[in-house]
Amino acid sequence: MAKYALGVDFGTESARALLVDVADGREVATFVARYPHGVIDEALPRPVAGSGCPPKLSKDWALQSPDDWLLTLKQSVRATMKASGVKAEDVIGIGIDFTACTMLPVAADSTPFCKMKKHEKNPNAWPKLWKHHAAQGQADRINATARRMGCDFLDRYGGKLSSEWMFAKSLQILEEAPGIYNEAARLLEGADWVVWQMTGVEKRNACTAGYKAAFEPKSRTYPPKEFFAAVNPAWANLVEEKLSTDIYPQGAVAGGLTAAMAKTLGLKEGTPVAVANVDAHVAVPAATITGPAKMLMIMGTSICHMVLGTEPRKVEGMCGYVWEGIIPGYYGFEAGQSGAGDILAWFVENAVPAAYHAEAAKRKKDLHGVLEEKAAALRPGESGLVALDWLNGNRSILVNVDLSGMVLGITIATKPEEIYRALIESLAFGTRKIIDSFESSGVAVDELYACGGLPYKNKLLMQIFSDVTGRTIKVARSEQTCALGSAMFGALAAGKKGGGYDTIEAAAKKMAGVRREVFRPNRKAKAVYDPLYAEYEKLHDYFGRGVNPVMKALKTLHFEQAGKR
Amino acid sequence: MAKYALGVDFGTESARALLVDVADGREVATFVARYPHGVIDEALPRPVAGSGCPPKLSKDWALQSPDDWLLTLKQSVRATMKASGVKAEDVIGIGIDFTACTMLPVAADSTPFCKMKKHEKNPNAWPKLWKHHAAQGQADRINATARRMGCDFLDRYGGKLSSEWMFAKSLQILEEAPGIYNEAARLLEGADWVVWQMTGVEKRNACTAGYKAAFEPKSRTYPPKEFFAAVNPAWANLVEEKLSTDIYPQGAVAGGLTAAMAKTLGLKEGTPVAVANVDAHVAVPAATITGPAKMLMIMGTSICHMVLGTEPRKVEGMCGYVWEGIIPGYYGFEAGQSGAGDILAWFVENAVPAAYHAEAAKRKKDLHGVLEEKAAALRPGESGLVALDWLNGNRSILVNVDLSGMVLGITIATKPEEIYRALIESLAFGTRKIIDSFESSGVAVDELYACGGLPYKNKLLMQIFSDVTGRTIKVARSEQTCALGSAMFGALAAGKKGGGYDTIEAAAKKMAGVRREVFRPNRKAKAVYDPLYAEYEKLHDYFGRGVNPVMKALKTLHFEQAGKR
Repeated sequence: MAKYALGVDFGTESARALLVDVADGREVATFVARYPHGVIDEALPRPVAGSGCPPKLSKDWALQSPDDWLLTLKQSVRATMKASGVKAEDVIGIGIDFTACTMLPVAADSTPFCKMKKHEKNPNAWPKLWKHHAAQGQADRINATARRMGCDFLDRYGGKLSSEWMFAKSLQILEEAPGIYNEAARLLEGADWVVWQMTGVEKRNACTAGYKAAFEPKSRTYPPKEFFAAVNPAWANLVEEKLSTDIYPQGAVAGGLTAAMAKTLGLKEGTPVAVANVDAHVAVPAATITGPAKMLMIMGTSICHMVLGTEPRKVEGMCGYVWEGIIPGYYGFEAGQSGAGDILAWFVENAVPAAYHAEAAKRKKDLHGVLEEKAAALRPGESGLVALDWLNGNRSILVNVDLSGMVLGITIATKPEEIYRALIESLAFGTRKIIDSFESSGVAVDELYACGGLPYKNKLLMQIFSDVTGRTIKVARSEQTCALGSAMFGALAAGKKGGGYDTIEAAAKKMAGVRREVFRPNRKAKAVYDPLYAEYEKLHDYFGRGVNPVMKALKTLHFEQAGKR
Repeated sequence: MAKYALGVDFGTESARALLVDVADGREVATFVARYPHGVIDEALPRPVAGSGCPPKLSKDWALQSPDDWLLTLKQSVRATMKASGVKAEDVIGIGIDFTACTMLPVAADSTPFCKMKKHEKNPNAWPKLWKHHAAQGQADRINATARRMGCDFLDRYGGKLSSEWMFAKSLQILEEAPGIYNEAARLLEGADWVVWQMTGVEKRNACTAGYKAAFEPKSRTYPPKEFFAAVNPAWANLVEEKLSTDIYPQGAVAGGLTAAMAKTLGLKEGTPVAVANVDAHVAVPAATITGPAKMLMIMGTSICHMVLGTEPRKVEGMCGYVWEGIIPGYYGFEAGQSGAGDILAWFVENAVPAAYHAEAAKRKKDLHGVLEEKAAALRPGESGLVALDWLNGNRSILVNVDLSGMVLGITIATKPEEIYRALIESLAFGTRKIIDSFESSGVAVDELYACGGLPYKNKLLMQIFSDVTGRTIKVARSEQTCALGSAMFGALAAGKKGGGYDTIEAAAKKMAGVRREVFRPNRKAKAVYDPLYAEYEKLHDYFGRGVNPVMKALKTLHFEQAGKR
């Protein structure tokens, strides 16, 4: 009798459920449910805010609704189950993954503060989505204090904690809405909150605690109380009063589905639920990676790079490394590029002439396809262009949002496909820079794996990444890599006895896979890209390391002048 | 009784005749006649080449046909006269201007070699157009030799003679077609050849001799024989045997129309003809400039900067200075930017999205107009961009065709009109750099004047040039500034006795004018542009002066890779 595991992937705009055959990873059914409120970044939802005008949000705010999470959990799981025809008793386990850090204040019984009449009009009562950027001031002070105090936890995060993470966001609540902060029994990740709703118990996961809240799983410690007190005395007891040191490793069981939740989802009460995961990280075993030196690139609007290692290593400008943050028994290292698909989308939307639109329409291709075809006909270096891939700032190595993009080498003979190709090459150079940084710090990167939207859409991009990095790239078999990873952790929650697996390695062997098509580096192309990469590196250091801080100056001027409107 | 002067402007693709009222500069009639053969840059014309396949031209060749010049002279003058209703006896003088250096080998009776059966199939027998670039190898050797020998004439030309000029082109004829070189009685400018056809006498003008053949009018000397011999022993007697030291200043009379030519043109025999002029230079008095510190910018596909001075001055990367090369009594200084209108045209053709095309169509505006409107709504610095205007290389200051364009500061929020504006700003920065270079070398530039196509089409561009340079810009009243200038020299050839003028100052006072609309620098904009210009300068020096020779490396790679096709 076949057994199945359910994975639910909570993204920025929607949640996806995926039902997977535990024996071979076959994807039986899937369903995507969009959040009714989407990303809340202009004003709080109207019904919640009562009859008056809903509070407007300042720029850089990005919230979500916990009702949306529960509603789409129900919709996506029910629709998937229905489409699959699988019986509830054959679902042996559930895993979920989430964007992070997406955090919210809750009461002791897990009630979100945004669901309380007295707090619902306060934006700080609402879940702050990962891309909420309004706590930059707090992040700056946190980093300055940590540096001043010589806190060694900074080493694990490339020298800087992001404004997107738990500390900056919680400090923002304290400083802007002290009432909420003080009254809150818990500040926790949306990931853990959903698991709490499913199982009735609070079981925080090590992945978010490690990558987003500076928790060190080996010693089971957070940064010291003195650090928090130095930033803001009222913040001294953050860990004891709002967080928890009761953290569960990836692969652990959070509990069984409650009777109520089982009924809501149409599943069996007591079905094992895994502790939650982060979307990017859960994709690693789903791309078959369960050991060191294989780097996964999640390639979508941006690129997330993850690799396992056996030793802690300080890597320049890395997002972070966490013991067992991805897979038990390894350090999980994370880095990233803050733009990729969105840079190409920007180009296609803003810089492709009408003639190309006409050609695409005539040939019934999309514009990306037409550009890819024309760009693929060029030789490496033929464009005469080199670009810097910082149109969204630089996340890894330089960790600087004030950096910006550049295209150099333009002539009046330059064609759109040449710029398009140069932008792709710049992304590949950015990834190579990250790989070089890992390797020179002692974290091996022998092979590349890819998932996300881009690898399935743009073969030219994949080949260029392979040529530039000189590495083979394998592509995850499943296009729903995150949801598959969650299903694998669901199978792990069931355990071998429950029809699943006892180790993530065993689950990966059976349930994960890569495609037959492998991108292999072309030696001749690599030989042309090596000197081009050297040019990229020179520009990277000149503009990125402060020799010529023109990009910062231009951003400052931009904001000043745009602000006068 | 009203008197008239005729100006004929020989351009790259066509000739324009303009009939002007001598009393007030009123433009009575004009006519443009296109050269039937246009620019000859692929193969020699078929009828000339006989029944066989016409010889193909290598890349970088650009020729013209002398028949085209005579035919369009006839067509344009006759059509203009006809349209004007003016009688031949009321035309008191004629002046012409020409592209330069556009040169050809001729026999002692002025027969072009390309009109001789035995030479017509040899491309070196044909007039080499100003933009003929196939003599770069010769130019490089000429410059290397001049530098090695410490020839001080280099100082007058910013340190370098161009491959577009007389020496490189004549050396190419010698080395590729020695038979033609040796047999030729004369190598001369098309400008002087046409005047010869009109008057029956060879009267070479000082403007082309000075700017294009290193003739020094004060001493009436060319570079010494030893210099030519050092480059190529067979070239030693270039000056004595092929050129002439019998050079006439701007404003002199070449002679009267021959009977035959008078009949051809429908004018009176003996009508005074001025010595020829160069198109750019003749525009200076036509824009009312007859004294120092007023810089004329001829703004079309590229920009030519001209200013008069009282002392010889060595200016970095200038095109050249010539005593009385523009106006009697002054040194005429020339500099230039190798791209302007063509850079904006490149952008409009290659980088403007379909939505903007649709908007332009809907609003019945052209794309430039839509972009200009959107760009004008931005504040200085608001784009967050800075660009280098070298999409066609750099002519003045750096004199380097291997430089290329750059746009820096791009984000995924960057709009097409922001890049468009940044390109315009980069052109203004390039002009400011040239002005700064003149001023720091002791050539004053107090005020700017403009003519060419751009000033009448793009007000935003003019305002940005004014804001960036901090200088007032006046625009020549006539859009046919060159033809008007030629007509003014025609009036000068007639002299006061003949119903014209004795000095170019007097002619300019009556016949030339500027428009009422003046572009005045906005102090606030200038204050924003000053630091932006400082950023431009830093990038200009970093990429332009060899600190980071990446542009040259990219060009080399481009040609290597493109060459493999």
